[in-house]
Order: sequence, then C-alpha cells, then structure tokens
Amino acid sequence: MRTIKLTLAYDGTAYAGWQVQPGETTVQGTLEAALKKVTNQSVRVLASGRTDAGVHAAGQVVGFQTGSELAVNVLQKALNAVLPPDIAVIEVAEVPEGFHAIRDARRKRYRYVIHDRAVRDVFRRGYCWHYGRRLDVEAMHRAAQLLLGTHDFSSFETSGAPRESSVRTITDIFVCRAGDCPDFRAAKMGLSPSVVPVAPGDDFILIEVEADGFLYNMVRAIVGTLVEVGRGAESEDWVHEVLQSTDRRRAGPTAPPEGLCLVHVDY
Amino acid sequence: MRTIKLTLAYDGTAYAGWQVQPGETTVQGTLEAALKKVTNQSVRVLASGRTDAGVHAAGQVVGFQTGSELAVNVLQKALNAVLPPDIAVIEVAEVPEGFHAIRDARRKRYRYVIHDRAVRDVFRRGYCWHYGRRLDVEAMHRAAQLLLGTHDFSSFETSGAPRESSVRTITDIFVCRAGDCPDFRAAKMGLSPSVVPVAPGDDFILIEVEADGFLYNMVRAIVGTLVEVGRGAESEDWVHEVLQSTDRRRAGPTAPPEGLCLVHVDY
Repeated sequence: MRTIKLTLAYDGTAYAGWQVQPGETTVQGTLEAALKKVTNQSVRVLASGRTDAGVHAAGQVVGFQTGSELAVNVLQKALNAVLPPDIAVIEVAEVPEGFHAIRDARRKRYRYVIHDRAVRDVFRRGYCWHYGRRLDVEAMHRAAQLLLGTHDFSSFETSGAPRESSVRTITDIFVCRAGDCPDFRAAKMGLSPSVVPVAPGDDFILIEVEADGFLYNMVRAIVGTLVEVGRGAESEDWVHEVLQSTDRRRAGPTAPPEGLCLVHVDY
Repeated sequence: MRTIKLTLAYDGTAYAGWQVQPGETTVQGTLEAALKKVTNQSVRVLASGRTDAGVHAAGQVVGFQTGSELAVNVLQKALNAVLPPDIAVIEVAEVPEGFHAIRDARRKRYRYVIHDRAVRDVFRRGYCWHYGRRLDVEAMHRAAQLLLGTHDFSSFETSGAPRESSVRTITDIFVCRAGDCPDFRAAKMGLSPSVVPVAPGDDFILIEVEADGFLYNMVRAIVGTLVEVGRGAESEDWVHEVLQSTDRRRAGPTAPPEGLCLVHVDY
C-alpha cells in the first residue's frame, strides 16, 4: 500500500460541505467516487478538516492509502478527467506511510472575502459576502490584531461539536482591501493571488487568518464580529471584551459561507 | 415618456443568450420581467447588441422608454432587488428621447479570457476557455495586429445573420498575460479590471478587441484563429491570408462562449 497526499481546490457552491452524508452530494463523496473510477478500489480519504456547505477550498489537503501503482502525475490527470469541473486536483505526492492529514497539519490559513459596494459583482457573487455598505477596514484590521496569539476562542465557536479544548493559537491575521494590501501579502507569502478571484483595485476586502487549528465556524464568527466594528456599531476594544467573555452570544453573527475559502495547510 | 439608458453586468452561464426566445430563459426576458415588476408597465428594451448563450457582459447598454417617474437611483435599487443575483444594473441614466442603443453605439469592446494551464481553475471555470497547453502570447499579439483597421471580416463571421456589409473597423486589439500587460491596459483605459475576474500574476491570457461593430461570432472566430498561431500550428502571416480570403473555412474554430465578455460600449 502507498500513502498519497492530494491537494484539492473546489468551488463549494454546489456541495453540502466536505464530509460524506447520506443523500447529499459532498466533496468527499465525489472525490471517493472518482478515486474508485480511476483505481478500481474503494477508498476512504481523510481531509485536513471539514469545510461546511458552500465553503470553498484552494488548498485542501487529503490523505489516503491505495494499492494502485499509478504514477502520481498519471493519477492527477486521471482524477481531473473524471472529477466534475468544480473540483480540481492541484497536486499529488507520495508520502511516508505514517502521514495523517489532520494530526500532522501544523497550520491552516483561511481567507474570507467581503464585497462592500452597493451593487453586487455578478461574476464573484459565489465567492464573497456582498455587504452593501462601506466598511472601515483599518478599524477592522486593528481590532483583528487583538485576536493574535493563544486564547480560549469559545466566543467564536458554534456549539455542537464537543472538543477537548477551545484554546487555539492565531499566528497571523489581517484585514485589507485587495488593492491596498501593501504588497498583496498573500502573494508575498508564496500563495498565488489566484486562489480566490480577487484583483487589486477591486472593492473587495480580504480577511486572512492563520492558526494551528480552528474551532467550528471560528473564521465566520470572527468575520461577523469584525464587521460589527467595521460598520461602526462596536468599538475596537469590544473585540477584546468578546474574546475574554468566552461567550458566543457576545460575538457578532456568523458570516455567510460563500465568502470563506481554505487557502493553505502547512505540514 | 422618459428614455432610460441602463448599463448591465450579467453572468451569461445560466441564460440562452440576450434575446427573448420562446421557452428559454434569456437576459432580456429576465430584465423585462423585472422592469414590469418595478414600474407596473410592460416594456420592450433594446440592447447595444445581442450576446450569445453563455457569453457574459460587464457593460451591456440597454435603452427603453417608460412612463414611470421613479428617480434613476430608486429605479436602480428596485431593479437590483428583484433581478436574480447573476444580473446587476451598474448604472441608470435618463437620456434624450432620440437615444438608440444600437445605432448610437460608436465602439464596443469585448474581452476574451483563456486559461492555458494544465489544471483548471475551479473558481473561474465559467469565465474562461480552459486551454490545457501553454500558448505563445507574443506571437498571438503580433498576429492580432494584422487585423487592426478597416477590413472585410467575412472570414470571421459565422453565416446565418445576413448583413448589408461585412466591413468593420478594429480600433484596438491586444493579447497579453494578465500579469504581463505593461500597465494592465484595461485599467489604464478607465475600465476596472474587476469587470472580469482576472488578477495579475495568474496564468490567464486576455484578448481584447475594440471595433465600431462586430459580425456574428466575430470575436470568438478571431480568438480561435489566434490560438492556432499561439499553439504553433500556423504562422503569424497566416492570419493575414485568412483575412484576405474572406472565407470562414480558412479561419480557426469558434472559441467557446464562456470566455467572452462584452466589456464596454461607447456612445
């Protein structure tokens, strides 16, 4: 048996999220069907983490074991030929047997995109939260810095999934307009700006968060909270109070899924 | 009666083109239904030109007459509230009674986008021609310059629609990679690069053509012809021969509709 690591991009619009669910079309189910078609073997894959219904990925990482002896580039081409157009295999690598997509993930980076202009963008409507009024991006960025570091992020966790700990470490967080990011930070970090269709000069706000792990709905709760600051309803310091309270009811609403994209997973 | 000029953006993916057709969902039909809902009057609108099934627009211009006394900004908001998310009214203006969206159009600009990388872009799959092999963009650009000026463009016209003349004047044409365009020419020309979701640094090729008018499928036939040069199957001079022949069978195939976008109409 070989252990394979796939890097996937997908447009989450048409899917009931990553994880296999009876009666639903999911990214995992679609990928496993493609793998069966290509390798003639049933495979169960493990992703770095689930993404919710409507959430996108530019760099989801998936591991699985296979008896197939197809070369990695052949496997990639064959998968891309049978997968639907809204899922693409970006990279395939053979990795040591012990590779575990969840446990071995050191850091993940999510990007959230907000379009804060009165008229919607018909071409990117599925990849951003269309927020009709202008937001104060500088205030949002300053408030976001209060979340940097190691904290109990219970205030930004949707209840449901019980976890051993709600403590996570945010290693980078920023809020900027796509055109104003000093040097388009995503590109500087070696991430292609093409991962989400945003061009400098547009009225799009990027919110990127990198952490060692994320609680359920954590990025969307952070975004909903920062928007409260950006629209002037709350002060920057309020974000600090929300964090300290460890009370989800104190934070802002959960931002809609279509603006969210899993950009990168570090191993 | 007032005469109104609307500027529209639409994602053509879900539509059987611009023009009303029985039993089909069209952009014109959808707009006219929205106008009826908002003004309580049946209206027939006239666009600067038809776009085919699957073709997009970032700046389609539409004229109509109405007895409605709604202020232009109120009309815009009301239309955007009832239109589906893949159509947006960018601008509304009241114009002199004689305004005619076809006859008064001085120049139109189309953009065609090609993605020439092996792996598809899941986020922009609906807005580009995914061409899996690398194209020679410089050769395509040089060949394109042979089409500048006033010519009989019969070689690039899909037969069907009879026209008085196949002579048109191309006033600008260029081919470049989104990241390599010296100063992102579209932006320099006052057109937001956001009109089509392409960011500098991506492996996307932009082909823009501006003319006083276009024959049926003309841009897509030009693109299909330039790709023959870009992939090395034909020389640059061949484009000149094709043009001179006034024979559609000599040119390249018609490029697929999803890469095409009507960017701007000058009046």
